[in-house]
Amino acid sequence: MRTYCGELNKEHIDQTVEIFGWTNRRRDHGGVIFLDVRDKRGIVQVVINPDNKNFTLAETIRNEFVLKISGKVIARDDNLINQKLATGEIEIVADTIEILNASKPVPFQIDAVDTSEEVRLKYRFLDLRTNVMQQRMRLRSKVTHFMRDFMEKHDFLDIETPFLTKATPEGARDYLVPSRTYPGEFFALPQSPQLFKQLLMMSGFERYYQIVKCFRDEDLRADRQPEFTQLDVETSFMNEDEIMALMEAMTRGLFKSVIDVDLGDKFPTITYANALDKYGVDRPDMRIPLEIIGIDELLENIEFKVFAEPAKNPNSRVAAMKITGGSNISRKQIDNYTKFVSIYGAKGLAYIKMNEEGPASPILKFLGTEVTQNIINKVDAKTGDIIFFGADKIKIVNEALGNLREKIAKDLDLYTCKWAPIWVVDFPMFDANDDGSLSAIHHPFTAPSVDAKTLESTATTALSRAYDLVINGSEVGGGSIRIHQVAMQQTVLKLLGISDEEAQDKFGFLLNALEYGCPPHGGMAFGLDRLVMIMTGSDSIRDVIAFPKTQTAACLLTNAPASVPNKVLRELGVKISLPEKD
Amino acid sequence: MRTYCGELNKEHIDQTVEIFGWTNRRRDHGGVIFLDVRDKRGIVQVVINPDNKNFTLAETIRNEFVLKISGKVIARDDNLINQKLATGEIEIVADTIEILNASKPVPFQIDAVDTSEEVRLKYRFLDLRTNVMQQRMRLRSKVTHFMRDFMEKHDFLDIETPFLTKATPEGARDYLVPSRTYPGEFFALPQSPQLFKQLLMMSGFERYYQIVKCFRDEDLRADRQPEFTQLDVETSFMNEDEIMALMEAMTRGLFKSVIDVDLGDKFPTITYANALDKYGVDRPDMRIPLEIIGIDELLENIEFKVFAEPAKNPNSRVAAMKITGGSNISRKQIDNYTKFVSIYGAKGLAYIKMNEEGPASPILKFLGTEVTQNIINKVDAKTGDIIFFGADKIKIVNEALGNLREKIAKDLDLYTCKWAPIWVVDFPMFDANDDGSLSAIHHPFTAPSVDAKTLESTATTALSRAYDLVINGSEVGGGSIRIHQVAMQQTVLKLLGISDEEAQDKFGFLLNALEYGCPPHGGMAFGLDRLVMIMTGSDSIRDVIAFPKTQTAACLLTNAPASVPNKVLRELGVKISLPEKD
Repeated sequence: MRTYCGELNKEHIDQTVEIFGWTNRRRDHGGVIFLDVRDKRGIVQVVINPDNKNFTLAETIRNEFVLKISGKVIARDDNLINQKLATGEIEIVADTIEILNASKPVPFQIDAVDTSEEVRLKYRFLDLRTNVMQQRMRLRSKVTHFMRDFMEKHDFLDIETPFLTKATPEGARDYLVPSRTYPGEFFALPQSPQLFKQLLMMSGFERYYQIVKCFRDEDLRADRQPEFTQLDVETSFMNEDEIMALMEAMTRGLFKSVIDVDLGDKFPTITYANALDKYGVDRPDMRIPLEIIGIDELLENIEFKVFAEPAKNPNSRVAAMKITGGSNISRKQIDNYTKFVSIYGAKGLAYIKMNEEGPASPILKFLGTEVTQNIINKVDAKTGDIIFFGADKIKIVNEALGNLREKIAKDLDLYTCKWAPIWVVDFPMFDANDDGSLSAIHHPFTAPSVDAKTLESTATTALSRAYDLVINGSEVGGGSIRIHQVAMQQTVLKLLGISDEEAQDKFGFLLNALEYGCPPHGGMAFGLDRLVMIMTGSDSIRDVIAFPKTQTAACLLTNAPASVPNKVLRELGVKISLPEKD
Repeated sequence: MRTYCGELNKEHIDQTVEIFGWTNRRRDHGGVIFLDVRDKRGIVQVVINPDNKNFTLAETIRNEFVLKISGKVIARDDNLINQKLATGEIEIVADTIEILNASKPVPFQIDAVDTSEEVRLKYRFLDLRTNVMQQRMRLRSKVTHFMRDFMEKHDFLDIETPFLTKATPEGARDYLVPSRTYPGEFFALPQSPQLFKQLLMMSGFERYYQIVKCFRDEDLRADRQPEFTQLDVETSFMNEDEIMALMEAMTRGLFKSVIDVDLGDKFPTITYANALDKYGVDRPDMRIPLEIIGIDELLENIEFKVFAEPAKNPNSRVAAMKITGGSNISRKQIDNYTKFVSIYGAKGLAYIKMNEEGPASPILKFLGTEVTQNIINKVDAKTGDIIFFGADKIKIVNEALGNLREKIAKDLDLYTCKWAPIWVVDFPMFDANDDGSLSAIHHPFTAPSVDAKTLESTATTALSRAYDLVINGSEVGGGSIRIHQVAMQQTVLKLLGISDEEAQDKFGFLLNALEYGCPPHGGMAFGLDRLVMIMTGSDSIRDVIAFPKTQTAACLLTNAPASVPNKVLRELGVKISLPEKD
């Protein structure tokens, strides 16, 4: 009967136990072999004395050999107790030793902290043996377990939607799959089950959930994967407040149950407009006690054009952000921040240092004393603080100061709490493009908060019934009430410049289904990888995925993608046609 | 506060309730409108009196309109009680009526039994509203819930494996996905997570499970789908008996918990050789009390060559199958059975009828009285029985009589019980092809039950450590102990004629990982669609999948697959190259 290494303790003293595991470390000391044997529950020390019948065999044991050992548990001498090890009060004196498998010398020590990600991904089967990766995958499994349990307790059915489906309209690139039975035609891998979950509502299931892989063939940013997992939820006959309350209860329970974190009684809510105005981004990190404050009205009439012109222009803004106690930020660090905001298009980074001697800044002479004092009053700056400024197009100021806010908070460790969830609501329906055309801020199936006629006349300002859940500045989930009436859907598609033909071609099946008694419905999707990353405190979603892809969408372990024989491609009705090199 | 239609009963009498649902049926009677309103829990009758404030609106209600109704629950008169309806003792007298959405006239009545599958699939969102489809999907969700619960209680971690991966070696065709970042290269969608779950064992997780989609681009038989779902399980340090016992406990618990069926204390076990010998197939339906009995030794020396030659030839066999009480099978029915066995290559179907007057058969004169009597004794035939014969190559006899056994059992309803699970074990490692080459019966990673040297010298007869779980003649699951030592893996690949280069190219990563301390491991996979089909008594796996494909791998609802703009294909480095018509 197997005992797990990590679970042995003083209660097992004098018992004969059998363990299976890997050689974590081997030492020889005074003719005795000491092995640290590791299984999925932890590590225990095994002692092999020179008179052991398998001693010669034991001498061949190297790191990562797989062993089956039986022996007797004994107490360690007081001076040999290892406090760092859960099993450190005992050890096993080996009786029989069996080598179940050997191992070549490993390219890196298990649990070595300085292994490069490239090597870790190539030898993922070794990297996953590390304690930190074992714990992350275990936590991830607990997360999905909790989610499923919660959803099923609330009468949501787990229903699978297809993977080989039609190009979806989310906007990112689809992964395509050639069809052999219909040569020249293609399936698309779903970017989300959006249309199918809406169809499930039209199918009368009322409550659906699924934890499901989705696919986006995008240029990969640090925090994206070509295949990612979401908790996907949809329900009929509930409004946004009811859906948000339910999803909030799920999230609260999840954090409490899995990592014993209390997210608070009721998550606060902020409008999209306020989030951008005060925090520069639509996913505000509420752990940070810094706010962006508009000061246009103080600057409209000054002569300093760098500030006065954006202050007067309705498409621009001037804003200030005070960092309490920030006056000792060095000149060099300010240069770094100036470089940082330039990523977002800012042409500079003005500041006022609140020194003991009074405000100090290269721009004071352009502002004049009165305006300077008005600004200081408006942002309530005190001696020892610093004020940073942004003055440009609204988008540039928001992005620059919004991201600077997060960077400074990180650099100076300004966080006021560990966990800060917030709902963002009242998103606009559309983004206006430079050419005057409209794009959907969420997706074309999101319901507006006004009727079709009002929507047509106020498209650029109309709000949607969408909501995002943000935790610590990361969007962990988003959703909306969907359009359930075909006329409204047609209005929205028209506003988006999608012709009837294109609409019929791409999602005629949805438009058709809307005409046969579609219930009011809405839902939400949580990004599982992102959520687990946050919950485990990992730096990258690659650290919470067993077999992730690199940022160029390759698998270093299996060397996928790979070339394929022409014969196979011929059967699929395609051939390779490489783009000509520039 | 919403009440569900299907849950209303006498206890709600005099309460005011609010329901949401679909109009299942509308009748007008004596100026009163009667609606059957349906939600996911059932149907209730709503009465709308002519003096109702929304009566004019109610007159516009048609089938499948979506309604929100509040009203008072009242008892029906005794003579109006509907025993067929769970809510048949009460009805709701409507107060306010709101039409949440209209519906065009539906192409088929919900719950109509005679709708063609083509129409059902095209209007799947209506088909899924039927009670039978709602129940099937609900049962499927219960099945996955039970499985996950069981696996997690037994400390299995739910770990996701990649979908965009390398061509897998299962033997069926892969679905391919062009890579945009590596033009000219392709991912493959997994036929199963086989190699990844083995890698997870090499990664030290010890117990893994996943309910996961798999993909096979095969010519579709009635019971296959291009994408299908399996419960995938792998564990380290357990032998086949331990794995089978655990999976049996899971299966037994599943049937008991979800459909209240007792599958019995311990599933019987049969060897592959015995299964073929006695039942003609490797997935014997043990509900059927018919056995195939070899009679070669009775016929080796007779003059009747049709029987004597296969009786003498070691690659052929002569076998008999007695059907108790089958002597009244008509001449016409025997002709049908003769045609049926010809599908499997049988050149005829000899028989002996055990009539009151004695045995009767066209072949009696060739067999002679003594041999006939020996056969009758051997199969223990009595007056009123019939004996069918097969005499040909072993494979033909087995397939012909094995399938005939199932057909006759169905035609004559011979089943002795409703549920009959059985384990099939001791599969051969390899199938010998006509050209002398070997194919893997399971897959190339299945462990043999002998050492590498013995395997090389006895390849065509060596057994594997594989096991299949068969219920009612359907293989619902299969698995094996895997090869965990690289030398054995290389031997098996060599026997399969796979060159070192090909092996390195296709699964070099696995061979590499085997060298770094791979634990002994094994596992199993259950076909979820098949299992749910059996548990729901459905005729097709399409009936237990929300959005299935047709037998030509198309989706009639969304019209996938579909053509794709050339611009998109150019980005992927492929172009269409249709095969020339023959």
